[in-house]
Amino acid sequence: MSIKIGIYGYGNLGRGVESAIKQNPDMELVAVFTRRNPADVKINTATALVCHTDDAKYMTDKIDVMILCGGSATDLPTQTPEIASMFNCIDSFDTHAKIPEHFANVDKTAKESGKVAIISCGWDPGMFSLNRLYASAILPDGEDYTFWGKGVSQGHSDAIRRIDGVVDARQYTIPVPEALDAVRSGSAPALTTRQKHTRECFVVVEDGADKSKIVNEIVTMPNYFADYDTTVHFISKEELDRDHKNLPHGGFVIRSGRTGENGQNNHIIEYSLKLDSNPEFTSSVLVCYARAAYRMNNEGMSGCKTVFDVAPSYLSSKSAEEIRKTML
Amino acid sequence: MSIKIGIYGYGNLGRGVESAIKQNPDMELVAVFTRRNPADVKINTATALVCHTDDAKYMTDKIDVMILCGGSATDLPTQTPEIASMFNCIDSFDTHAKIPEHFANVDKTAKESGKVAIISCGWDPGMFSLNRLYASAILPDGEDYTFWGKGVSQGHSDAIRRIDGVVDARQYTIPVPEALDAVRSGSAPALTTRQKHTRECFVVVEDGADKSKIVNEIVTMPNYFADYDTTVHFISKEELDRDHKNLPHGGFVIRSGRTGENGQNNHIIEYSLKLDSNPEFTSSVLVCYARAAYRMNNEGMSGCKTVFDVAPSYLSSKSAEEIRKTML
Repeated sequence: MSIKIGIYGYGNLGRGVESAIKQNPDMELVAVFTRRNPADVKINTATALVCHTDDAKYMTDKIDVMILCGGSATDLPTQTPEIASMFNCIDSFDTHAKIPEHFANVDKTAKESGKVAIISCGWDPGMFSLNRLYASAILPDGEDYTFWGKGVSQGHSDAIRRIDGVVDARQYTIPVPEALDAVRSGSAPALTTRQKHTRECFVVVEDGADKSKIVNEIVTMPNYFADYDTTVHFISKEELDRDHKNLPHGGFVIRSGRTGENGQNNHIIEYSLKLDSNPEFTSSVLVCYARAAYRMNNEGMSGCKTVFDVAPSYLSSKSAEEIRKTML
Repeated sequence: MSIKIGIYGYGNLGRGVESAIKQNPDMELVAVFTRRNPADVKINTATALVCHTDDAKYMTDKIDVMILCGGSATDLPTQTPEIASMFNCIDSFDTHAKIPEHFANVDKTAKESGKVAIISCGWDPGMFSLNRLYASAILPDGEDYTFWGKGVSQGHSDAIRRIDGVVDARQYTIPVPEALDAVRSGSAPALTTRQKHTRECFVVVEDGADKSKIVNEIVTMPNYFADYDTTVHFISKEELDRDHKNLPHGGFVIRSGRTGENGQNNHIIEYSLKLDSNPEFTSSVLVCYARAAYRMNNEGMSGCKTVFDVAPSYLSSKSAEEIRKTML
């Protein structure tokens, strides 16, 4: 019997979840929930329904796990606690500073409903977090480094788009190769923000816009660009659409640590991702954690969980015997 | 109150565990157990006892977790089931083909005693296994690659030492850079044994030994060398002791997979280790899984477990709140 999945919110992430479900034969998409008029939403799964989000509450017996595909800024803080009061669910909440508050809100409703809700599943937070935890538990005497990119930062692209005279923009975050090499050497360098990443911007402007003023506004923008070496390229709308339409991303989590009676031996643990599609990879993480939520709830667990609380075996479609035999 | 640890077997691995415990303030080494005369064994922890292995059974109330540091060939198959009948315990059993049998034997005694025994904790099996599992659960449509090295293979070094006329030897396993690059490109190549790794041997021979005969015996040795491109260097005993006394190792676990409605987007997940000391890194993994065994048993769990069954949060000395706040 397959695990019955609902998708709550149908943007890039929701479509990614839909295609990921097709790669997992033990799962079945039952319905997509949207705030739009369901009649106007066309999906890629002939056997699934399109329903209004208001009608989710009538489908608690039809769906094993709801995968929330909204945004962290305004959707998930209210949606996840609400959905957890009715369904096992998964989200990719990624506002790191607000995770403790979100956890507490979701934990309350999930404990009341007896459901499992796994929050912040993606790659950062998510797989990168897991790798920080494993590596620091193994090598307590050491330093952690996280590098992001090369990839498109949507928040930074949006910040450029808000500048007067800008039509469209794409911002790439790029790790500095020399910084990566220094970390991998085991020298445990102290690195400033500027030494770790550069930022490269491709910007389309209105006819007659003051380009030097726009460059200045970008490179001096506090929080977003002021602390980085930033390069700005002006290109046409056609070039942007042709060369920069994808959403690649990735990065590196590296721990450099020492062992031995005198700390004489050095070790480097490195985890890296190179992703053609940031939203589709996040979707794939969401889907395997949906399997975990279903199984954990079937074993009687409830409440809010994170990737730290999920034993890896729950993620695989294979049996415990099979993974011990083929993957251990 | 600290977690009280016993070390069962005091070779390279046991000494590594001893120094790793000193990096974990929530742990305390209580005793080292040896098959030798305890009076002849000198350890590096003033506050710990040295006891004979026969006396472990009298110390069940003094030790929370026993870390088994024997070998997989002859020690662990009998030791782990026996120790699991009295103690929570951890081993690094690494004979991949015999894991199901070892698991069954340990599970039986650990269930009877109500203790937790975590087997095959190290880096392969261990961290590499975990990364194979996570990556294949996230990207079900993909291929796995494991590369080992550059590092010393002790089994291969031993095989060379058994050749007539050989005094000592050290064998390095080296991943082929072009194979790594091909995998990272996302082209999902099919690779033969010969295409993935080369083997480099440093050999000390007796005066007057027939070097060409020894080279031929090495490079044609079935299972160990015949399927690889192997290089043999003859060096002096002094050179071997000076340049090859350490036990570095490492490797790469890479998954290349596709997502999207038509599999149009490619993703590379890569985990790698670069270790100055293979036994000390394995020891560090054993120690953090000892913490997990202690906690899991305190929560009422029992039986044989592997890294697949251990939720990551059990490994960290920090609280669940703290890891959510600082690492997620």
